[in-house]
Amino acid sequence: MNPLIDGLQYANWSENIFRQMREGGVDAVHVTITYHETFRETVLQIERWNRWFEQFPDLIFQGRTAADIALARDTGRTAIFFGSQNPSCMEDDIGLVEVLYTLGLRFMQLTYNNQSLLASGCYEDDDTGLTRMGRGVVAEMNRVGMVVDMSHSGERSTLEAIEHSTRPIAITHANPASWHPALRNKSGDLLRALGESGGMLGFSVYPHHLKGGSACTLQDFCDMIARTADLMGIGHVGIGTDLCQDQPDSVVEWMRVGRWTKSIDYGEGNASAPGFPPMPGWFGGNRDFGNIASGLKAAGMSDADVAAVMGGNWQRFFDKSFGAAT
Amino acid sequence: MNPLIDGLQYANWSENIFRQMREGGVDAVHVTITYHETFRETVLQIERWNRWFEQFPDLIFQGRTAADIALARDTGRTAIFFGSQNPSCMEDDIGLVEVLYTLGLRFMQLTYNNQSLLASGCYEDDDTGLTRMGRGVVAEMNRVGMVVDMSHSGERSTLEAIEHSTRPIAITHANPASWHPALRNKSGDLLRALGESGGMLGFSVYPHHLKGGSACTLQDFCDMIARTADLMGIGHVGIGTDLCQDQPDSVVEWMRVGRWTKSIDYGEGNASAPGFPPMPGWFGGNRDFGNIASGLKAAGMSDADVAAVMGGNWQRFFDKSFGAAT
Repeated sequence: MNPLIDGLQYANWSENIFRQMREGGVDAVHVTITYHETFRETVLQIERWNRWFEQFPDLIFQGRTAADIALARDTGRTAIFFGSQNPSCMEDDIGLVEVLYTLGLRFMQLTYNNQSLLASGCYEDDDTGLTRMGRGVVAEMNRVGMVVDMSHSGERSTLEAIEHSTRPIAITHANPASWHPALRNKSGDLLRALGESGGMLGFSVYPHHLKGGSACTLQDFCDMIARTADLMGIGHVGIGTDLCQDQPDSVVEWMRVGRWTKSIDYGEGNASAPGFPPMPGWFGGNRDFGNIASGLKAAGMSDADVAAVMGGNWQRFFDKSFGAAT
Repeated sequence: MNPLIDGLQYANWSENIFRQMREGGVDAVHVTITYHETFRETVLQIERWNRWFEQFPDLIFQGRTAADIALARDTGRTAIFFGSQNPSCMEDDIGLVEVLYTLGLRFMQLTYNNQSLLASGCYEDDDTGLTRMGRGVVAEMNRVGMVVDMSHSGERSTLEAIEHSTRPIAITHANPASWHPALRNKSGDLLRALGESGGMLGFSVYPHHLKGGSACTLQDFCDMIARTADLMGIGHVGIGTDLCQDQPDSVVEWMRVGRWTKSIDYGEGNASAPGFPPMPGWFGGNRDFGNIASGLKAAGMSDADVAAVMGGNWQRFFDKSFGAAT
């Protein structure tokens, strides 16, 4: 079995998108369910998902263990794994880590661009690394089996998370900064350390993370993947599209601004282009993963390596990451 | 296997009590984790339990399915099943039923003495039965596999819950009113309807529910059980001690008053005896279930019937009650 797994999406979910997942043969997706929401607000998002699971049982179900990837494949559905892009959902309460895990949260970013109670975001001037609470929360995440995701964190915080975590961590959606300089993309040193520690990088198709933005070519993207696999090890890379399909621009403003400022923050955009950028022509949604697989093949990857990047590596990572530490 | 199961306790939990459960051979207990608490406050109670599960893994673990009763027996531990004595924990949000189920809640009372959003409590002057929301919540509890518990509800509300629920309901802790008249004890008509519908009654040892109060004799209690088994059917009765071991009197005040009044409500007590009444001499805690079993035998019950009352019936009820409706 060669599963097809996307390491991050945050779409404006609908039956249409769930059907596209099936058309594209997507076995599992890590979906963002919350950014700046409080615990109670996050539970409201879980309630929305519960209604979708109830409404579309033939298309999707909630993923909790790596075995659910095979179950999804066997039953022709997509397993949905929950994640948070900020620790707002756990508020200031370490006990909520286990509660959120029980509710299905399998990934939590320690920061979203800004300083959090746990670590420094990649947009802060000074990255002071893991906080006192951050070290305790990483240990608690390790204990229950929730993946530390440092996609939006600063370099020092990320290196300290790799060092402090007793289980491999992930950067679910980012690309190498050497390919496209951006605060959200990652240095070679960091990616090497991530690979050596057994962690995972998911390559992002979000245009602000791409060389040339929306005009980035498939081949340029896939050549970058091949080079990064050489740097990190072929077993430590996957896809994490950051697909935000059908979202209105108000959503990217919520992501960037939340309730932390009274001003507008454009994040990776700017005043003249404040909204979601158009996706590259070769990846508009869940039916287009085949284009990436073909591109990787054209970049010289073996069939086995393509399969590893398209899902096999995430499957193995899910398997060792979810569930109580032994 | 003849499991020993208590249908309700709300102790001031401690290692001491968990050890007494083991000494008493208690395989499973339905524990109250919340009364008037909001959802977020209920989650704080779940966090307390998570810490106890983490701290005392050799004594207790969280029960989620009936199979956990056998697991408890096989591993020499007590399975703890969560319940709520009021629907405050689900606030005004039907989506919280499934969320609370996922967090382990297996019983929820539709009322605690007073009118709730769902039904009428047994202390209200007028019992108007299930509300519009109450009917929807019963259906949702049926869907996910959470037991409707009517211990503190009015007669009409309870009869309507029996009628409306597609799965058997429970009165986890009460006694027949014909034996000891009390607003919390139940009429013969109601108990007969409960038995005929496949539901369960757990006999309470809380002195305010006992004939003669704290002075009630073991034999009087056990004779009452034998007569009630004749009325309801031997398969529909169990124990639900309502043990509140080691609780300070401030806790019984919270149970009775919550935040719904600025006055003092004495519930089943009175101004001269506002606190917890002393337990009868033959049942002070989890090491004393053997006294009840002996009393049932002395009341003329067969060994098989005693085993059914002491846990076998609850085990079968848990098995058909927990988990998604099929």
